Amino acid sequence: MTTGKINVSVENIFPLIKKFLYSDHEIFLRELVSNATDATLKLKHLTSIGEAKVEYGNPIIEVKIDKEGKKLHIIDQGLGMTADEVEKYINQVAFSGAEEFLEKYKDSAKDSGIIGHFGLGFYSAFMVAEKVEIITKSYKDEPAAHWTCDGSPEFTLVPSDKTERGTEIILHIAEDSLEFLEDFKIRELLTKYNKFMPVPIKFGTRKEKKAFGVGEDEKMEEIEVDNIINNPTPAWTKQPSELNDDDYKNFYRELYPMQFEEPLFNIHLNVDYPFNLTGILYFPKMSADLQIQKDKIQLYQNQVFVTDNVEGIVPEFLTMLKGVIDSPDIPLNVSRSYLQADGAVKKISNYITRKVADKLKSLFTENREDFEQKWNDIKIVLEYGMLSEPKFYEKAGAFTLYPTVNKKYFTLDELTETIKDQQTDKDGKLVILYASDNDAQHSYVEAAEAKGYEVLLLDSPIVSHLIQKLEADNENLMFVRVDSDHIDNLIKKEDNQISKLSDDEKETLKTTLEGIVPTTTYTVQLEAMDSKAAPFLITQPEFMRRMKEMSKTGGGGMFGMGNFPEMYNLVVNTNSDLATSILNEKDKNAQESLVKQALDLAKLSQGLLKGEDLTAFVKRSFELIK
Amino acid sequence: MTTGKINVSVENIFPLIKKFLYSDHEIFLRELVSNATDATLKLKHLTSIGEAKVEYGNPIIEVKIDKEGKKLHIIDQGLGMTADEVEKYINQVAFSGAEEFLEKYKDSAKDSGIIGHFGLGFYSAFMVAEKVEIITKSYKDEPAAHWTCDGSPEFTLVPSDKTERGTEIILHIAEDSLEFLEDFKIRELLTKYNKFMPVPIKFGTRKEKKAFGVGEDEKMEEIEVDNIINNPTPAWTKQPSELNDDDYKNFYRELYPMQFEEPLFNIHLNVDYPFNLTGILYFPKMSADLQIQKDKIQLYQNQVFVTDNVEGIVPEFLTMLKGVIDSPDIPLNVSRSYLQADGAVKKISNYITRKVADKLKSLFTENREDFEQKWNDIKIVLEYGMLSEPKFYEKAGAFTLYPTVNKKYFTLDELTETIKDQQTDKDGKLVILYASDNDAQHSYVEAAEAKGYEVLLLDSPIVSHLIQKLEADNENLMFVRVDSDHIDNLIKKEDNQISKLSDDEKETLKTTLEGIVPTTTYTVQLEAMDSKAAPFLITQPEFMRRMKEMSKTGGGGMFGMGNFPEMYNLVVNTNSDLATSILNEKDKNAQESLVKQALDLAKLSQGLLKGEDLTAFVKRSFELIK
Repeated sequence: MTTGKINVSVENIFPLIKKFLYSDHEIFLRELVSNATDATLKLKHLTSIGEAKVEYGNPIIEVKIDKEGKKLHIIDQGLGMTADEVEKYINQVAFSGAEEFLEKYKDSAKDSGIIGHFGLGFYSAFMVAEKVEIITKSYKDEPAAHWTCDGSPEFTLVPSDKTERGTEIILHIAEDSLEFLEDFKIRELLTKYNKFMPVPIKFGTRKEKKAFGVGEDEKMEEIEVDNIINNPTPAWTKQPSELNDDDYKNFYRELYPMQFEEPLFNIHLNVDYPFNLTGILYFPKMSADLQIQKDKIQLYQNQVFVTDNVEGIVPEFLTMLKGVIDSPDIPLNVSRSYLQADGAVKKISNYITRKVADKLKSLFTENREDFEQKWNDIKIVLEYGMLSEPKFYEKAGAFTLYPTVNKKYFTLDELTETIKDQQTDKDGKLVILYASDNDAQHSYVEAAEAKGYEVLLLDSPIVSHLIQKLEADNENLMFVRVDSDHIDNLIKKEDNQISKLSDDEKETLKTTLEGIVPTTTYTVQLEAMDSKAAPFLITQPEFMRRMKEMSKTGGGGMFGMGNFPEMYNLVVNTNSDLATSILNEKDKNAQESLVKQALDLAKLSQGLLKGEDLTAFVKRSFELIK
Repeated sequence: MTTGKINVSVENIFPLIKKFLYSDHEIFLRELVSNATDATLKLKHLTSIGEAKVEYGNPIIEVKIDKEGKKLHIIDQGLGMTADEVEKYINQVAFSGAEEFLEKYKDSAKDSGIIGHFGLGFYSAFMVAEKVEIITKSYKDEPAAHWTCDGSPEFTLVPSDKTERGTEIILHIAEDSLEFLEDFKIRELLTKYNKFMPVPIKFGTRKEKKAFGVGEDEKMEEIEVDNIINNPTPAWTKQPSELNDDDYKNFYRELYPMQFEEPLFNIHLNVDYPFNLTGILYFPKMSADLQIQKDKIQLYQNQVFVTDNVEGIVPEFLTMLKGVIDSPDIPLNVSRSYLQADGAVKKISNYITRKVADKLKSLFTENREDFEQKWNDIKIVLEYGMLSEPKFYEKAGAFTLYPTVNKKYFTLDELTETIKDQQTDKDGKLVILYASDNDAQHSYVEAAEAKGYEVLLLDSPIVSHLIQKLEADNENLMFVRVDSDHIDNLIKKEDNQISKLSDDEKETLKTTLEGIVPTTTYTVQLEAMDSKAAPFLITQPEFMRRMKEMSKTGGGGMFGMGNFPEMYNLVVNTNSDLATSILNEKDKNAQESLVKQALDLAKLSQGLLKGEDLTAFVKRSFELIK
C-alpha cells in the first residue's frame, strides 16, 4: 500500500488560475483595490485598538497609469508587509491572509468592515500582467521589501528603500491586455466595481477653482486637486434616521446617472440577525421604454460590487425594482439552483419580501392620496407578487387598490362595502364589474353606470390570473367584464322585465335574425331590456374570454383555449323600437339592410367592424348624409 | 536577495477547486463521463494504429446508482491506468493527461475525436463526493490499482483484483449532495450533457419484447435490455449527403422532444478550415407563444454539451434559430466581451452568416413557391439580419421578398420593374406604397388599388428601420404608407384635377371647417379630387409617423419624437357632393352636425373614433334607423 499527498504541480497552477479563477479578466482591478482597501481597514483597526502605534491619518488608495512604461500602479497607505509576511502571504498561494487576520482579531474586527473574502485575488493580476512587482513597507519598524515575479513560479525578493508605509503593486501589462492602460477603461472599471468602496480612491487629478485672500484681495485661482472617484460612505451604509428624502433621491442619481425619472419611493433594508444585509430598493416609475430593465438591482459585498444578476436572491417579482443590496452572507460562485435551495438565501429573500410589504402598507396608511397616484406605476409589480409569493399575497390585501373607471380607488374590503347593496345578485353573489379598456368598452361602461354600478378599470396584462385567484379565495365574489353580457344579466335581480313582444313574435324575430346574422360567429340571444337600452349588443362570455387571456399570458387557463375561434353573443333588445321595426318590415331587402346596419353598429361598439366591412359601412354612411 | 518558487499550499487547493472550478456542481457528471469517453476513444485509436494489441469490441460506459450505499459508479471499458499512471495523472493535479496524449499521437489522433479538453475535470468529483475511489485495470498486462482519497490531500493506492479492462470511479456522495443519488436527477443530467456523446452510455435497463423461435413456435417474450441514454452518432456528425429531409426532422425532434411544430428548413454547417465547426441550424416556425425562445441553439464541443448561451458566437439575428453548433475552436470560460473581440470567433460568426445567406438563396431559387409560403415566418429574422449585419444585407437583396396585400411576392428588383410605369411620380421618384395592417387601412388600400397601384403589406415591428435603410441606399426610391396622404398626393402626376369650387368658395369652406373641426389635432387640407373619392379623409404624414415608430422600436428616429402628440391632416375633397352640401347649408346647426358626422366617419376609417365619441355616434346611428 502506498499513501501520500496529492501533489499540486506548480508549473500548471498558474495557467489554471489564469483560465479558471475568473471568467472575466477585468476583475483583477476589483481584486487589487479590494486588497488595498483591506490593508487600509486592517491598519485602522489595529490603531483603534492600540496595537499599531502609528498615526492612521486620512489614507487614500491611488491608481495610476504609466502608459509609456506599460505599467499600472495600485498604491495604498495601509499596514504594508514585512519581507517575512510577503513570504507567507504572497508566496503561499491560496493562503488567505484576511482569514487568518479575522481569526486572530475575531471579536474586535467584526464591525470594522474588513473585506477578507478575496484572499486569492492577488493572483488575478497575472490574468493581465506579464510581470508583477510588490513594493511594500510595513507599519512595523522593519525594512521595506520588493518582490518581483514574471508569472512563472520563480520570484525574487530584495530589500527596497520605500519609506512611506503601505503597499504599491506594479503591473507590467501584457501585450494582449493593453486596453488596461487606457484612462477610460480604468475609469470605467473603478466606477463599476469600486464606486462605493470604503476608502477614498484617487485616479488622476482635476482642476478646481478656489478663492484666496479676503475682501478686496480675494482672488480666484485654479488649483489641482485629487480626483476621488468613489463615495466611501454611500447612503445604504447609514442609518435610515440619518437620511431624508433628498438623500435617497440623490443616491438614486448616484447609482443611475443616466436615469432622469425620479423613483417613486424607496425601501431601506437593514438587518444584522440572523443574517447581515443592508441596502436600498427603489420602486422606479415604469415607462413604456423597454430600456428600463437595463438598470438592475446591484449586489455588493461589503461595498464591493459583485453582480447585477440578483436572480434567486431577490424574489422574482421584485427584480423589476432598482437599488442596491449589500450582504456578506450570500454565497457567490454557486449555481442558481443551489442559491434557490440555500436556507440562508431563502431567509434573505423572505426578509426582503416582508420589508417591501411593510413599507407599502405604511406608505398606504401615511399618505393614501400619494399612494393612489403611484398605483398605476406599481400595480404590475404588486399583482405579480400576489400571484407568485403566498407570503406577499397575505399582506397585500391591506394595500392593494382597485381603481374604478372614474379614478376612485378602493381596497377590496372598501369596494365590497360600497357595492354590496347595489351589486349583490339574487343568488347572494357579489358581482364586481370591470373594464379592461375604458375607451374600447365605453358603451358597456355607460350602460353599467346608468344602473348606478361601480366599474373597475383592470388593465394589467396578468389581471385575469389575479381575478381567478381572488375568486378562488372569496367564495361569494364574482368578477365579470362589462361586455360579457347585457347589464341586466350581469347582475341578475328578482324583477323581470316585461316583454313587449309575444312569444310568437319573439320566435319569428329570432328566425329572421338567424337567417341574416352569421351564426357561426354570433349566437342570437333575445332579451326583454329597458326600451332605451341599445337595440343590438355584442357580448363575449366572461369564462371563455378569461380562459383565453390566461392561456395567452401563460401559467393558467385551459390548454389549447388560446387557439379557440372568437365566439360572441348578439343580444337583441326585444323591447327596443328597432326590434319592432325589424319584425314589422315586410320588404325582405329592407329588413336585411336594417339588421345588417344594426349588426354593424353593434360591432362598432365592440371594436369588431374592420377592413372591407368598415369601408363599406363608411361609404354607405357618407351616401346617407350627402 | 531571495529567489524561490511560489509554493502552492495543497491544503488550500482542494476547497479552492471545489469553490472556483465550476460554478455549477452538477458539471461533475459531465466531466467524469467525458473522461470515460476519452479513455474509450484513446483505446480505439491505439488499437486502430496497432499500438494496443487488444480487442476493442463494443465498449460502453455505465452509470449506476447505489442508493443504499450512497454511491454513484461511472464505469468504462477504455484503456485503464496502471498504478504508475494513477500516480502520474491523478496524484499530480493540473497535469492534463489528454494534452500529453495528444502531443504524442498528434497526427494520427487528430481525427479520432478525443475530447481532452477537460483534463482537470476529475477533481470536480470532490464537489459532490466526500470520498472518491478509482479502480482501474490498464489494457497493458499490469495489475489493477485501487486509489482512494477522502478529499484531504492524503490518498492511498493499493492493488486491486479487478480483471476487466477499464476504469470504475466510485463517488461516495456527500450529505449536501444527496440529490445526485436520485434516478431522475442523474437521468436529467445525462440527458442534458451527454445526450450525443460518442460512446454509448448505459443507465439502468428497460424491458423490450422480443420474438423467439420460428413459425408456429414463435413466442414473444419480455427481456431486459441495456437502457442506452445517448445517441452516439447524432445527425450533425454525418455528412449532408448521408441525410435526407426526414433525418433532419427526426433530429429536430430528438433535440427538442417537447416541440410539436416542425421546423421550416435546416442549414447544415460543416467546415474544417480555418476552424473546425459542424452543426445543424433550424428555422423554427415562429409562433405567438413567447415560450419559443426557451429552446435555444445548443453549443457542443466534440459532442459534449457546453451551453445554450451562444451570444457572441452566433450573430445576434440568428439567435432566434434553433439547433446545434459543435466546435472545439470556441474558447470557453472567457467573458462575452472577449469572445466578441476574438478573431477566431468572429470568423465563425461570419461563416455562419454566410452559410445562412447561401442556404436562403438556394431555397429561394429551387422552390420559390415554398419559400414564399414560409416568408411570413422567417421575415423577422431576415429583416433583423439586414439591419444588423452588413454582410448579410449585401446578400439578402437576392431573396428578400416584398409581399403585397393580395399575397403576391416580389423581390425589390421585380417590384421596381412591375410598378415603374404606374408609380413613378412627376419628379422621377419611384413611389412604393405600403400598408401596415390591411384591415385597419382598408379604405386607403382600396383607393390605391382603384388607381391600379400595388400596395405592399409590411407589418414587421422593425420594418420602418428597414425602409429607412432601403431609401438611403436607393436614391430614387420612396416608401409611403397608404394613409399618409390622399392617393393623388402620394404619387403626384402632372395632370391636375379641376376644382368644382371657386377660390372664394374654397376659402369659405375652409373657414367653416376650421370653425368646427378641432384644429389642434387636425390640419384642414382642401383637395380637388375625384368626385367619387371619399369626401373626408384623415391622413398622417409619412415622415413624422415613421420617425415615431422608429424611436419606439429603438435605434433610430429622432430623439424625443416618441412623445410627440399625434397630429393628422383632414383632407376634404372639394369636388365631393358633401363639400357642396356643407358649403350651401345655411342652418348653422345642421352644418355643424353635417361636418361632425363626416369627421366621425373619417375617424372611423382611420380607427380614431373611440370611447364616448363612438358611443354617441352609434346611439345617433341607431336613432336614424329605428
